[in-house]
Amino acid sequence: MSEKRIIRIGLLGFGVVGQGVWKNIERNRSALEYRLGAQLKIEHIVVRDQSKVRGVAVGDIVYSEDPACVVDNPDIDIVCELMGGTGKALELTRRALEQGKIVVTANKALICEHGEELFATARRTGAHYFYEASVAGGIPIIKTIREALVANRFKLIFGILNGTSNYILTRMEREGLSFAETLVDARKLGYVEADEALDLDGIDAAHKAVILAYLAHGKWVRLQDIICEGIRDITGEDIEIAGQLGFKMKLLAVIARDFEANKLSVRLHPALISKKEVIAGVDEVYNGVSVTGDVVGTTILIGRGAGQDATSSSVISDIADAVFMLQGAPNPVISEEDEAVYKELADGLELAHKEMLRGRYYLRIHVKDQQGVLARISDIMSKEHISFATVNQKELEDGTAKLMVTTHESDEASIERAKAVLLLEDSVIGAPVSFRIFDPAKA
Amino acid sequence: MSEKRIIRIGLLGFGVVGQGVWKNIERNRSALEYRLGAQLKIEHIVVRDQSKVRGVAVGDIVYSEDPACVVDNPDIDIVCELMGGTGKALELTRRALEQGKIVVTANKALICEHGEELFATARRTGAHYFYEASVAGGIPIIKTIREALVANRFKLIFGILNGTSNYILTRMEREGLSFAETLVDARKLGYVEADEALDLDGIDAAHKAVILAYLAHGKWVRLQDIICEGIRDITGEDIEIAGQLGFKMKLLAVIARDFEANKLSVRLHPALISKKEVIAGVDEVYNGVSVTGDVVGTTILIGRGAGQDATSSSVISDIADAVFMLQGAPNPVISEEDEAVYKELADGLELAHKEMLRGRYYLRIHVKDQQGVLARISDIMSKEHISFATVNQKELEDGTAKLMVTTHESDEASIERAKAVLLLEDSVIGAPVSFRIFDPAKA
Repeated sequence: MSEKRIIRIGLLGFGVVGQGVWKNIERNRSALEYRLGAQLKIEHIVVRDQSKVRGVAVGDIVYSEDPACVVDNPDIDIVCELMGGTGKALELTRRALEQGKIVVTANKALICEHGEELFATARRTGAHYFYEASVAGGIPIIKTIREALVANRFKLIFGILNGTSNYILTRMEREGLSFAETLVDARKLGYVEADEALDLDGIDAAHKAVILAYLAHGKWVRLQDIICEGIRDITGEDIEIAGQLGFKMKLLAVIARDFEANKLSVRLHPALISKKEVIAGVDEVYNGVSVTGDVVGTTILIGRGAGQDATSSSVISDIADAVFMLQGAPNPVISEEDEAVYKELADGLELAHKEMLRGRYYLRIHVKDQQGVLARISDIMSKEHISFATVNQKELEDGTAKLMVTTHESDEASIERAKAVLLLEDSVIGAPVSFRIFDPAKA
Repeated sequence: MSEKRIIRIGLLGFGVVGQGVWKNIERNRSALEYRLGAQLKIEHIVVRDQSKVRGVAVGDIVYSEDPACVVDNPDIDIVCELMGGTGKALELTRRALEQGKIVVTANKALICEHGEELFATARRTGAHYFYEASVAGGIPIIKTIREALVANRFKLIFGILNGTSNYILTRMEREGLSFAETLVDARKLGYVEADEALDLDGIDAAHKAVILAYLAHGKWVRLQDIICEGIRDITGEDIEIAGQLGFKMKLLAVIARDFEANKLSVRLHPALISKKEVIAGVDEVYNGVSVTGDVVGTTILIGRGAGQDATSSSVISDIADAVFMLQGAPNPVISEEDEAVYKELADGLELAHKEMLRGRYYLRIHVKDQQGVLARISDIMSKEHISFATVNQKELEDGTAKLMVTTHESDEASIERAKAVLLLEDSVIGAPVSFRIFDPAKA
């Protein structure tokens, strides 16, 4: 066999994912190098603090604290940005792409916030920016949408994109625990990110939804323009009542395109979803994405959404594509024509107004247990043309009651108005809480 | 924008899938050509009978009955073999590959039976043979195993690979119908292949299992060397009892590798699988595949396994990869080094003996309703070290009874010996029927 080309890789960051990439390249090195027809060499690792002891012994790889050793090093073929964050990571990614380098990343926040600039830089300089690991960990959702389903236009993409919140919801459901109790456990297990808002307020999953929206529709959506609601308001009784009605409570990302009106809805929020849907059965730390294309129909992918090994599997898949590219393959992500593709894909496409969202809703209203309360509330709702599909009343020990209702089809604006009126109502205690009921057939 | 290269495609066969490819290229032509950076032209269609009226109006495409117009035509860049069968299709595929052409196929029977020769030919001549559409229709299982999960070795791949049998089992379960009744409906809907053994005796799914075994492990397995059992023996009461015990009855393909012993088990048979498994929830005509890699963990893909649109989505995905290749990409399927890869992957790998299969079993035994029958049967089983986990007895109107039992862990050889002894037993009517209970955690 002829001598294989050596592909030199530099890692920026050597935390959980970086160490996973190193470990798993070593683990299956010979099969991997055979398949790629090239040798892989991790040439340099840049860390914040060189003195910190690492979890793996990496042999003769050179460490340093100077990112220039990777980013500006002409010997490095592939830069893996695995440091996270949007500060230093932005500066270094930009610098690598400016020099026409291939960058592989798992950094969803960076792409979500600066993807438009970074992909434009890559196009301009002929660099390449790979990001399979940024969405849904080990699930090959980027490759599937980009390559496998190339024949399709995507009416609906939805799913579970954050493992931590899914773990919390699963335990709340199975063990009847409260959100607070489960959160304590999730923290102990190291499942919750240092910045807890990323997991609990839906921001992490929203980052991923923004990336998928761009990939499928060529449009960059800003986080502040979309519905992004986390799981903090969900109680055990919401999950229980949902279960009795045949639903699971899940934190869902939804990317729905109406091709006729040329509107795109991107959103991230908890939702009740029928137990009959496969995505409803995706529990624990697993992620799941349902993709409906106009040709293929619905395809669903389920797998580990996070963790060292799953994420590094996707990073290595991107490294493999990069190796093929270094051996002469055209870039499947950003071709010369790509800007035009995306312009055409997104031509005239507008973000749908949140208020236009239609569907059924679940509401939890805490009320004084007075005569005529239900009639009064029903009256308020009906003024907004909202009618109840199911009503569930639970007496509390303090003489108050909780009303859990589901509605027939309504819309976002009506529900918000009704909630505002209810808030002012004397018999209502605190703010009513509402969750959407998600029906893929009507999304 | 510069003039794009025209990629000329020839179709062999213009039945359901061929017409789907034509229709769906037309449907999303502009987005597709943008993404590929090339123009797609279906240059020639070879049919068996030119006079036959076609379901689609294909404009100025040239029809003929002479395959040479595609296979031996130097202007044709990509040959799509969508005629099926293993006769003429073999001859034409071989001829195209001999000339170094790119061939895209949906023909699982051909690959299963002649893949070893055809891939060898492709390697020798520098041709390329793409086959995403041959396994699980619109599900990108080939690309996922080959590219997305390139970092992995595959301990277990299992799933539902035949939509027709899954449709029949789903209806039997939901409506309590018999196999015969459901089959009548499936035939009416056109779901059953002309050669019914393909769907009902598991041969179609076994073809696909053989292809996945090669892809994941580099070893060609012969159909006659593996367990291949269809769904004809399944009764409504088997499904009912399975359901009561928390299982679904599914026709499963299993490709399990024991890396330590270097043994490969490839099999296709009905099995009881826990309702908690995602694959158990894959119903109707859907297919689902669960892939466990040593790095990524378990990833599950679900989608339409057959039908014009789903299958043509995969054919078009292969055409897209072929277009990239024609523009200079190295072949991700068969590189120069590929033979070595597969030699290494399969190095010393042996097919596991069927008799070595271990697991739990379900048995249905028709008995005369005499005193002591259960004790007698229990005795026969215990001589083979088989013990019962559950026993269910159902009295029939004619005074006989059916015993439905599940066993604790046993093995194939013991179960077969016990069945042989039971068959000779005076109190047993007809042949006992057994189904395996599949537990992915122990596969």
